[in-house]
Amino acid sequence: MFTLTSPSLSVHSLSHSGLSAAKLLKEKGLSPVVLEARDRVGGRTFTVRNEQTKYVDLGGAYIGPTQNRILRLAKEYGVETYKVNEEERLVHYVKGKSYPFRGSFPPMWNPFALMDYNNLWRKMDEMGSEIPREAPWRAPHAEEWDKMTMKQLFDKICWTNSARRFATLFVNVNVTSEPHEVSALWFLWYVKQCGGTMRIFSTTNGGQERKFVGGSSQISECMAKELGECVKMESPVYRIDQTGDMVEVETLNKETYRAKYVIVATAPGLNLKMHFNPELPPLRNQLIHRVPMGSVIKCMVYYRENFWRKKGKEGGRERGSMGSVIKYVVYYRANLWRKNCKEGGRKRICEIYSRVLGSEEALHPVHYEEKNWCEEEYSGGCYTAYFPPGILTQYGKVIRKPVGRLYFAGTETATEWSGYMEGAVQAGERAAREIMCMMGRIPQNQIWQTETLANVDLTLFPPLPFVTTFWERNLPSVGGFINFLGVASVLSVATTAGLLAYKKGLLTRS
Amino acid sequence: MFTLTSPSLSVHSLSHSGLSAAKLLKEKGLSPVVLEARDRVGGRTFTVRNEQTKYVDLGGAYIGPTQNRILRLAKEYGVETYKVNEEERLVHYVKGKSYPFRGSFPPMWNPFALMDYNNLWRKMDEMGSEIPREAPWRAPHAEEWDKMTMKQLFDKICWTNSARRFATLFVNVNVTSEPHEVSALWFLWYVKQCGGTMRIFSTTNGGQERKFVGGSSQISECMAKELGECVKMESPVYRIDQTGDMVEVETLNKETYRAKYVIVATAPGLNLKMHFNPELPPLRNQLIHRVPMGSVIKCMVYYRENFWRKKGKEGGRERGSMGSVIKYVVYYRANLWRKNCKEGGRKRICEIYSRVLGSEEALHPVHYEEKNWCEEEYSGGCYTAYFPPGILTQYGKVIRKPVGRLYFAGTETATEWSGYMEGAVQAGERAAREIMCMMGRIPQNQIWQTETLANVDLTLFPPLPFVTTFWERNLPSVGGFINFLGVASVLSVATTAGLLAYKKGLLTRS
Repeated sequence: MFTLTSPSLSVHSLSHSGLSAAKLLKEKGLSPVVLEARDRVGGRTFTVRNEQTKYVDLGGAYIGPTQNRILRLAKEYGVETYKVNEEERLVHYVKGKSYPFRGSFPPMWNPFALMDYNNLWRKMDEMGSEIPREAPWRAPHAEEWDKMTMKQLFDKICWTNSARRFATLFVNVNVTSEPHEVSALWFLWYVKQCGGTMRIFSTTNGGQERKFVGGSSQISECMAKELGECVKMESPVYRIDQTGDMVEVETLNKETYRAKYVIVATAPGLNLKMHFNPELPPLRNQLIHRVPMGSVIKCMVYYRENFWRKKGKEGGRERGSMGSVIKYVVYYRANLWRKNCKEGGRKRICEIYSRVLGSEEALHPVHYEEKNWCEEEYSGGCYTAYFPPGILTQYGKVIRKPVGRLYFAGTETATEWSGYMEGAVQAGERAAREIMCMMGRIPQNQIWQTETLANVDLTLFPPLPFVTTFWERNLPSVGGFINFLGVASVLSVATTAGLLAYKKGLLTRS
Repeated sequence: MFTLTSPSLSVHSLSHSGLSAAKLLKEKGLSPVVLEARDRVGGRTFTVRNEQTKYVDLGGAYIGPTQNRILRLAKEYGVETYKVNEEERLVHYVKGKSYPFRGSFPPMWNPFALMDYNNLWRKMDEMGSEIPREAPWRAPHAEEWDKMTMKQLFDKICWTNSARRFATLFVNVNVTSEPHEVSALWFLWYVKQCGGTMRIFSTTNGGQERKFVGGSSQISECMAKELGECVKMESPVYRIDQTGDMVEVETLNKETYRAKYVIVATAPGLNLKMHFNPELPPLRNQLIHRVPMGSVIKCMVYYRENFWRKKGKEGGRERGSMGSVIKYVVYYRANLWRKNCKEGGRKRICEIYSRVLGSEEALHPVHYEEKNWCEEEYSGGCYTAYFPPGILTQYGKVIRKPVGRLYFAGTETATEWSGYMEGAVQAGERAAREIMCMMGRIPQNQIWQTETLANVDLTLFPPLPFVTTFWERNLPSVGGFINFLGVASVLSVATTAGLLAYKKGLLTRS
């Protein structure tokens, strides 16, 4: 049994958050304890090393400009980054069809589709600009947007099937869930707090610009090494008791820890793994049942040579690993993934590649790696928690509200790049400073800190703004265009009727 | 430490389910153990006894015809029932306005509202008739309806604000959540498996017809008494290990139990309170994060005399308890219930009554009882779990699928009156028979059993069908009526335009 006179940290999952909290506390002369549920640090990052791959990131991997906190840590530990192949042509395989295209967004030949895409991103960013990062429930239209799913919003905004299909993919890829599952308010907030539609989705100058040489778990590993003995592995917390002088924390491996303060740095839903005494307040007790994690299986297929080059389609090449790699992030669907067996997954993916790339060679990989995040008890899924309709406005405000001597971290509690490694660090350091404030070591106005650029390599990560063109700003929406033509009132005009048919029974707005 | 050679049951919450499983197993000569998290049995039923009230049900209370399993248990234990005052005029207080009306549904003066109400119930029952009780995910329109919230469906079905408002209340009252929070497929299934809109909502011949004299917890208490020593109180389970010959179960009070089989009889979301070894399969691991419990505070205000009679409005009178009672079930809203303190709740409710009943006397109750189910760690909320959009079709099929030697009960896994005491008993007995089948004691086709009426007092609980009138079956919907008038194409007609305005931007269907 350990008795501590200084803060103890209870950490289950996205280790970046708990570890960066502990790191900061230790730097300030306190002696934290970190309780990690797993036999490894890293949480939702997971770098696997083996002979075949050298290393491969089967969890969170990407970093990009404006993620200044995680970049600061990387610089401190000397972890280098490399650019994900900018010129690569991506193959988007959606519902049995492949859409090869260059850059972040697919090209459009149809002028209506062009207007529609342009309006979609513009509209989402416009709506996002109304939403406060730190309190989305206070947005002027919070109630209205939270009662809507993202599917409903897309059905309102989009006139073409092409835009609606790509909008769905945009949700799938960014938050590993379906547009009909998520609150529109939440998703618009999520995109906004990452810096908008272009920042979240782009490779160049966006969230997917770079990866870490050697893998992303290194950051957690370096922090754990620095913290040394006070990181306790394989210590899932199952009980937190605040009824005494000290907070008492018990772990599955039969240890009891006592501390003045506790930071719970798990995804909100994983608070449920702990039994609380006294019980959590009603809003938090209900919140943690309402924010499930997304669903994703990350798969990598390795081939001896990049045969697809001949075909004129390129997969992403991974630096520092063997052979040529095609990365395949499967958004989890129960029906698609009937049996969760490695062989089944490998075979299925190779068949898809074979079809998409039009090559028989795709059926013969030399190696395969897969990680199903849906089966992880101490993640519950990946990448991040989503809010179904109605939850953010009713329960959002308690997401990081302390409960007695418990403080809450984890990337879901962040206000910049929540859902990413960057958000995990922001949240962990904020929670650490909340405790330092309670101990009288810093004033309240120092709890929230913006990150200076002093510790970021700006030659590699210049936080360039996204510049919109005159046409991007001023191209009408499809609805606006129809109004402009003055045909809105002449519903019998055949061409317009055809266009309206896209809207499937919805008549409102442009 | 206990070592058992026969089935052990792990029970956290809605005790009716776990206890009725144990009761059946014991009757068949097995020796189950019941682990109850709380210091009382009863779960989501909660009968409080004190001097002022004699007794009062602060949790699940109502029973009605077709709930034959719970009625069988009541008869066995000699627990009598009484009719909830049939003639009472209910006061519906919605958003600051009161609507006094007789019977289940409020009266309508507006002929459009009449058509609209009639069409609403008819439509919901029609849609429900397509949904299989035991597998709603196999309904012909399962995918489509599961992608929709109930709010979206109401916006499609209802033409009048009056119907839309009452439809919202119908969801609030039946599943203590909001139409925009729940999947349309799930809610339609829920209503259907209770026997349809009339059965679920009615007092006479419906789910609210009767209550137990002496309170509803008596059923659990009688079962617990019958089971005797094998019911272990204050034993929350935090670990379930299936890696050995026997399933090993650990409780917070430091006991370890071993058993051949385990029935987990909690609400699905409360499975999260346990750490599993091996981990749950991916679909179940994600399901249990996706099905939150509803939100409700049950309040009772007691007055010396029923002053509201003078005013011509009656509250429900409770038999066997002191004075006169007005029951007030608050559908929980964070904003309404800023501070969860008894005095605050009492004062607020009395003020509302005073306004609704138009009497100053309402400000002076002699007694007050309140139970906020949202703060209960081992319930998570009440009455039952709801499915947000997209979950039932993706995850529903594993809700009662065994995981190794774990079997699942709890009212959420039932196929008749799921969400009610009746469903809890159905689920518990089914799970018990699944184990008996595994032990070779009964054939597989005996696991699911329909309840005979032999053990039900049919003079008190005749399972009368609801008879629809010619007009209920044939009255057109508002949309249908407009089509009938042949004005649908003449959008400029002023009266129709006015009606269309009700639909707020939705043009489709009748």
